Formats: sequence, C-alpha cells, structure tokens
Amino acid sequence: MALIVQKYGGTSVANPERIRNLARRVARFKAMGHQIVVVVSAMSGETNRLIALAKEIMPEPDPRELDVMVSTGEQVTIGMTALALMELGIKAKSYTGAQVKILTDDAFTKARILNIDEHNLKADLDAGYVCVVAGFQGMDANGNITTLGRGGSDTTGVALAAALNADECQIYTDVDGVYTTDPRVVPEARRLDKITFEEMLELASQGSKVLQIRSVEFAGKYKVKLRVLSSFEDEGDGTLITFEDEGNNMEDPIISGIAFNRDEAKITVLGVPDTPGIAYQILGPIAEANVDVDMIIQNTGADGTTDFTFTVHKNEMNKALSILRDKVQSNIKAREIVGDDKVVKVAIVGVGMKSHVGVASQMFRTLAEEGINIQMISTSEIKIAVVIDEKYMELAVRVLHKAFELEAA
Amino acid sequence: MALIVQKYGGTSVANPERIRNLARRVARFKAMGHQIVVVVSAMSGETNRLIALAKEIMPEPDPRELDVMVSTGEQVTIGMTALALMELGIKAKSYTGAQVKILTDDAFTKARILNIDEHNLKADLDAGYVCVVAGFQGMDANGNITTLGRGGSDTTGVALAAALNADECQIYTDVDGVYTTDPRVVPEARRLDKITFEEMLELASQGSKVLQIRSVEFAGKYKVKLRVLSSFEDEGDGTLITFEDEGNNMEDPIISGIAFNRDEAKITVLGVPDTPGIAYQILGPIAEANVDVDMIIQNTGADGTTDFTFTVHKNEMNKALSILRDKVQSNIKAREIVGDDKVVKVAIVGVGMKSHVGVASQMFRTLAEEGINIQMISTSEIKIAVVIDEKYMELAVRVLHKAFELEAA
Repeated sequence: MALIVQKYGGTSVANPERIRNLARRVARFKAMGHQIVVVVSAMSGETNRLIALAKEIMPEPDPRELDVMVSTGEQVTIGMTALALMELGIKAKSYTGAQVKILTDDAFTKARILNIDEHNLKADLDAGYVCVVAGFQGMDANGNITTLGRGGSDTTGVALAAALNADECQIYTDVDGVYTTDPRVVPEARRLDKITFEEMLELASQGSKVLQIRSVEFAGKYKVKLRVLSSFEDEGDGTLITFEDEGNNMEDPIISGIAFNRDEAKITVLGVPDTPGIAYQILGPIAEANVDVDMIIQNTGADGTTDFTFTVHKNEMNKALSILRDKVQSNIKAREIVGDDKVVKVAIVGVGMKSHVGVASQMFRTLAEEGINIQMISTSEIKIAVVIDEKYMELAVRVLHKAFELEAA
Repeated sequence: MALIVQKYGGTSVANPERIRNLARRVARFKAMGHQIVVVVSAMSGETNRLIALAKEIMPEPDPRELDVMVSTGEQVTIGMTALALMELGIKAKSYTGAQVKILTDDAFTKARILNIDEHNLKADLDAGYVCVVAGFQGMDANGNITTLGRGGSDTTGVALAAALNADECQIYTDVDGVYTTDPRVVPEARRLDKITFEEMLELASQGSKVLQIRSVEFAGKYKVKLRVLSSFEDEGDGTLITFEDEGNNMEDPIISGIAFNRDEAKITVLGVPDTPGIAYQILGPIAEANVDVDMIIQNTGADGTTDFTFTVHKNEMNKALSILRDKVQSNIKAREIVGDDKVVKVAIVGVGMKSHVGVASQMFRTLAEEGINIQMISTSEIKIAVVIDEKYMELAVRVLHKAFELEAA
C-alpha cells in the first residue's frame, strides 16, 4: 500500500465526462489498496473567465479580491471530483486550500507556501477517504484567500506529497511524459522513461511546458518522487523524475533532451564603459520594474568599452527598452540600445554532458553546418543554451536531435 | 452616522454594469458618513448553473459537496463588488461566510445560523472599509462550508444587521417595496410606505415573494429594522417593516395587502373516525417524508366520521397521496383520499382587522357576489386565507383589492 498524490490539470477536468474518467482512474488505484490524494485545477478556461470578469470591473484588479474570485475555479472542481468519486461508491471529501490549511505568505496572485497542516488529510486517508484538494490556492496567516500564481496546482501537488511523505506525486497532463523535444517539431522525438531532477529543472526553465519550474524545484528540495503521465491514456508509466544521477553508465545518452523557447527577446546595450558596477546599473532598473531577465552575457571589452546583452520575455521588450533609454543610457554613456524579438533560445540538456567532453563543440558544429549563426551562448553544468534567429528554430532542433541520436531508443 | 446593512439579490448583481450601479449607490451612502456592510447573492442564474453542473455528475448530489460548489457563486460576486467599490476610490474588503465567521449547524444546503463573529467586520468598518459579505453561506464548527438554502442571502443580511446592531437592514430587490398585492394581477396595487412585522410575515408566508420568510422571522426575533427597496431606482424610500402595531389610528386601513399562492395543492381524507390522534396518524407519515404542510382543516363530524383536509406544495401532492394510500388509509379506515392541484390560496392580511369586526364576512360576501366558492378557510389574528378554484384567482384578488379600498392612497 502506497500513499499517492495525483494532480490533474485543467484539460483533465475540462468537463463532467473527463472528471468521470479521472474518478475511474482513482478508483483503480484505490482498488489496489493505495491511499490517494487528488489535486485538481480549475476546469480549463475557467480561470481566464474569472480574470476577465474581474478586469471588466477593474482593469488592474486588486490582487486580494482577484484571488477571492479566481480561487472559486478550483473550488467548483473539487466538489465535482468528490461527487464523481462518490458516484462510483468511493468515500471522498473535498478540501479548499484554506480547509487543508495550506498556509502561504500574503503575496496575493503569486503566494508561496509556508506550511501545510497534514493532520486532517491524514485522518481522512486513514478513515478510507480519497481527499480531493483544490490546487493553486491557500490562505495567509490572517485567513485571506491566496493563489499561488499560474501553474500553481503542480506546486500544490508536490507540496502535499512532501507534507504527507507520499510515495509518489503523479502529475497527469495532456502529454504522456517528458520527451527528448517537442514532437510537433521533431516527429521522431522519444518519450523518456526517466530523467534526473536537474535535467527536468533545466528543461522546464528552458521552455518545456510539461511541468512548472516551481513545482520541480519544490520536488527537488523535498525529495518528492515525481512522475508525469497522460490523463487520456490508461496505459504507460510516463516519465519518472529521479534524484540520483545514474549517468555514470557509459551507455547512457549524453544528452536527454532539447528545449526551446520562442518567447524571449534580446536586448543589447552597446558601447558601455567596461567598469565595475555596470551590470547592476543596467539590470537594477529592469528588476525594479518587475521585468524578469533570463540569459545575461557580457564580453570582455577591447577598447575600454563592452557590449552587454540579456533576454527578457517578448511582451516586456519595449518596456525594458524604454527604461534603459529613459533612465540608464545617459548615466552609463552607452552608445546605443537595441532590441530584437525575432530570436529563439534552443538548449540541449543532459547530466551525461558532465562526463563527456566535446558536447558544446558538437552542438556548435552541427549548427554551423546548417549555416545557423549563434548570437548568444550560455552554459551550465548540464545545459548549453544558444540564442539564434527565430527562422532557424525548427531546423536547429531537428538537426541537434539527430546529431545527438535522441531518436534511438 | 448610521450603520446600514444593504443586501442585494441576484438580479441586482446580474452583470458588471449592475454591480457598478450598486457600487455607486453604496458610494452615496458612504458619502453621507454611514458605515456600510454589503451582502450580495450570486449573479442571477449562477446558482442554478452550479447545481446543474453537480447534478450532471451525481443526480442527487452529496449535500456537503454541493455546498462547496454552490457557495462559489457568492464568492465571485463579493470579489467583483469589492473591486467595483475600489474602482470608485472606496476602501472595500470582501468576506466569505467562513471568513466573517458565520457559524452554522451542519445541515448542508439548508443550514441555520448559530452565531456571527462581528469583530473583524467592526474593526474594518471602524477603519473606513465597506465590508462586502457573501450571502447565503457560512461554515460549521468543523470548518465545512455550508449554505443556508434558497433565499438565504436575505437571512444573512438580517443576521449581520442583528449581530452588528445595525440601524437598518435594507433589502434591495427588483421591486420598489411591498405592495397591497401583485401589480401584475391588480394594476391599481399600491406600494405601502410601511407594514408591520406581523403583516409582512403573513404576506411572506402567504406567497408574497418580496422577502424570504426566514429573514422576516429573524428580523422580528432580533428587532432588526428592515426596509425593502428597488435596486433599479435611486429615488423612493421603499417599504419599512415596523415593529409597533401603530394601527390604533382609525384612519389606518383595515387590511394592508392581499397575498396569493398558486403553488399549493389540496388533499382531503374523507370519512375518517372522529377520534383523538387521527390528525397525527395522518400527518405523521407526511412529516416523516419531509413534505411541508401549510393549511390544515378538520371539521367536527356529524356521524362519528369527519373529513380532514390539508395543503402541500403542488410538486409534492402525488408523493403525499402515495404515502397516505400505502401507509395510512387502511390503518385509519378512511373512505377515500383525494387530491386537487387546481386550487389557489388567497389571503387578506392586516393588523387593522384586529380592531375591526366584519372583515371576514366582507371578504366572504365579496367572493360570493362573484360566484366564487370557498373550499377551505383558515384564519389568524391578522389574516384570513381561503382556498378557491384556481380559475378564479385573478378575479378574487381584484375584487378583494377593490372591496377593501386598497388602491386609495
């Protein structure tokens, strides 16, 4: 008998029929003797509907009240899911975030979990109930309703698994696991049976949409065994995210997958003095304006000046450019500030590259052979990311997938 | 400066535009220096949508889970209402029933309020906030979400007014007050400036849909000054429900209004022994089956047997008939059991009739002059109700309205 947390996203609870499917899967696990906690998102489209309703009243809605409204999405789903389980003769009970007590800070719309009181859930599990918990929400110390921000239901699942010391946290989604890359770009892309936590983290942060990065971080921190599965197929073991780097075996593939991100734009500050503090002078005002920065590159300058390049979300490029031109350019005596949103980031990820030399050079040669110019390079121990012209994206992913023999089983 | 509780029903919050209207009205009261608590229902149609969603999963939904789902309707409205107030520059804060703490029993879908913790609301009111509270909901001692049943938002408003010792509880609805009768039946029907609590209670229980009877009972018990107003008109003082019987003045009208109810059916048990305990033998099984009974009539019998008649909701007539025929008829040796759902109840109500003789005879004469046969009669100190053939309903209401000179100002 195991304790399993199963998290179902918006498409898995999109309508009553899918919720009945979900209930039938839970029933099968229950019949095997497992204790089950189900975490559900809002029905797909519901969160956006509620946000639109709020914005119709107040274009920039007060975050506390927005959370009051948006959290109802999951509250409806927990009721429906509990009913679907009861309809199959299974004892079930729903919990809002506040009812569990999922205690968060008071950063409305992007709250972080501080503590989970597992006592009520444990008692109900021991009494034979399936506990159905609303994802994405909690309450702060003053009893205000909070939400964890987009994708927060994954985090709820992982956090509950950690608090309950669950044997496994299963994330059900509309894909059947983690792939070497997006199968829509490379039809030969292969599902991975397992992947390390670090690789998953890099893949997630590099734009793979399977799991939210916060939930992966959380799983790593609390050593929660995560598994990604399809909610639309009853067969298959999905992809297990493991903690041990088992990649010492020479037969393991060098890289595990290729991620890409079409949402980034590149901003270059040309001809800035190559002096201490310049990076802070450039990025400080950007951070103050709550613009997230991803890659950051600065080369050593030759003539006492240097070029400073970083990437932001495409939607925020113009905001970032205005800030730099209005508040920064004259202070730091930059020659020019240019933006380019016709770029993509492509990254290869794998713990195998730790023990294999020449991975970077193989990547660069592969791209060079296709005449693809590399605009930025950023590396970590298990990842090499490049920024290239967006028109080459599909080509780059395909040739890299082939070069690193990812299609082979 | 007064403390006013304002309750807005589903049609008053049906869409963002109406919620903005509501906020503008609250703003005017706030500008006069009053402290305001706003109680809102779900947007009209929303409660039915949620119930339908639950029934799609489980035809007879578990009541605890149904309440979890249905309570989201008001939760969305409190968020929208608070946002609409903020958009006008007014400090506002929303409260779910659980956040207030509106403590109820655990009778899901028809819970009763046990206690209200007014401390948080008081503190926020004193800090200048408009408090926006979800009607119709609370929580039980174990933290489960409960709902008060249909129309419960009125009860929430009155209960909050009582707990906060408010100066007035204003019920905003789609009519501008309490009328002498339904203006759709009698165009000359007149709005009453005031009406006593007892009269309102009789009118409400006799089928006038303006206020829920439970909220009127509650207002009477806790001496809450109630006022019914239109949410669609900015002028007018509506109808005040007073506690004192100020009807000693001879110029006051004898009766205040005429109520009617098309939803009742009549059941007659013919030829039962005129012995002690017969009423219990008939109505006991009916009550056990949770069928509500309204009027009950039993005449003295002449030949040792009597006829026993009572009314139930039309929807429950067949259920009641089955119970009587299956479980009761042979026990009590009744000759026959007949049902009739082609009846209506019409009642005249007024504290004035206490001090005026002949009201009943005037009512009966008026009906007789139109050839309307009276099937049942039931009276209280301030009410005379009759059951008649449904085809005469409009005629009966019109002639009684005229006979008692209700159209005169």
